[in-house]
Amino acid sequence: MTILDLATKRKTARKFKLIPIKDEDIECILETARQAPSGSNRQPWRFIIVKSPEMKKNIRESAEAGERGFYDNLSPERKVWYNEKGLSPSKPNLTEAPVLIVVVGDTSAPNYKPSLWVSIAYMVLAIEERGLATVTYTPSDPNLVSEALGVPDGLMVESILPIGFSDDPKEKETRFKVSEITFRERWEGN
Amino acid sequence: MTILDLATKRKTARKFKLIPIKDEDIECILETARQAPSGSNRQPWRFIIVKSPEMKKNIRESAEAGERGFYDNLSPERKVWYNEKGLSPSKPNLTEAPVLIVVVGDTSAPNYKPSLWVSIAYMVLAIEERGLATVTYTPSDPNLVSEALGVPDGLMVESILPIGFSDDPKEKETRFKVSEITFRERWEGN
Repeated sequence: MTILDLATKRKTARKFKLIPIKDEDIECILETARQAPSGSNRQPWRFIIVKSPEMKKNIRESAEAGERGFYDNLSPERKVWYNEKGLSPSKPNLTEAPVLIVVVGDTSAPNYKPSLWVSIAYMVLAIEERGLATVTYTPSDPNLVSEALGVPDGLMVESILPIGFSDDPKEKETRFKVSEITFRERWEGN
Repeated sequence: MTILDLATKRKTARKFKLIPIKDEDIECILETARQAPSGSNRQPWRFIIVKSPEMKKNIRESAEAGERGFYDNLSPERKVWYNEKGLSPSKPNLTEAPVLIVVVGDTSAPNYKPSLWVSIAYMVLAIEERGLATVTYTPSDPNLVSEALGVPDGLMVESILPIGFSDDPKEKETRFKVSEITFRERWEGN
C-alpha cells in the first residue's frame, strides 16, 4: 500500500475497543517516530508509553481539568459549535485505549513544535499501517498533564496518542480537493 | 516498503540535480497532503507550486534577506556552530530544485501549525516513496516570503519544500535509539 493509499484510508478514531495491542506494534511505531527529521537534528521528542489503568486515570483527570477550563472560556456561539460536533471536556479514550503514547517536547530546541509534529505524523501513518487507530489529542492545558507525568521544567507534553483498535463508526471527514487549495507560481495564480 | 522502511531510508537533501520532475509526482504528493488530519478538520493548508525561474528567484531573495537578519542576530558562539554545520544565509536550493511547494497556513484556524506539519510530514514520506528528496525549509522571516508570493493577511508561509532528485552526498544524521528517548508510565520510568 502506498503512502497515498494509507493516508486516504486513514481516519481518526476517538473510540477504541477494550482489546490489548502488541508490544511489537508500539516498538515499530516508536522506531518510525525516531527517524523523523528535526530542526538542527535536535530530535526534541521524548515518549512516555502508558499502559497502567492508574496512570491513564491520572492523565485523563488532568487533561479533563484543562478541557473544563477551556470550555468555560468559550463564547456561547463556540460552545454551540462544540456541542454540535459532539465535543466535550470528557476524554474517555484516554482510559479506554490500551496504550497511550505521550509525546513530550524539549522546548529549548529551536522550532521544536514542527519537529514534534513531523514525528507524530510518522506515527499516525505507522499506526494505520498496523491496523490500529489513534487521535492526536492536544491538551488544552499541557502543564497539568506534564505535572501528572512528572515531566520536568523545560519539557512539555505536546500531544497524547491513544492507540488501539478503532471502535469509532464515524466516517472520515471530507477534505478539500487539491484544486481548491493549490495555486500556481503565486497566491491566486493558476 | 513499510512506513518504517521509508522513514529509515529517508534523508534530507539540500542539493538537487537540475533535472525536471513529473507533474504526476507533484499531484500525488499534494493528494497525500490533503488527506492529513487537522484540528476541527479546518485543513488550514494551502499550497503554491512554483516552477518558474523568476518566482524561485524572488522567493530565494526574500528568504535570504530573512536569513541574513537572523544570522546577524546570532551570538558569536552560535555563529561558529552554524558555520561548522555548513549553514549560511545562502539558500541555493530554492532556485536549483525543479519545483518548490510553498506551504501556506491559515493562521485563524485553531492550532494551525500542528495540522500544517502533519500534512508536511505526509508529503515528506510521499516524496521519498517516489524516489525524490526534499528539505522542510522554515524561513526565518516568513513575512518577507509571504509578501513575495502575494499571500494575503491572515495567512502566512510556514515552510518551503524544494523537491527534486537528490544531489546531496551527506549521510543521514544519526538518531537517538528508542530506548534513549522513551519512558514507561511516567517521566524517568522504565
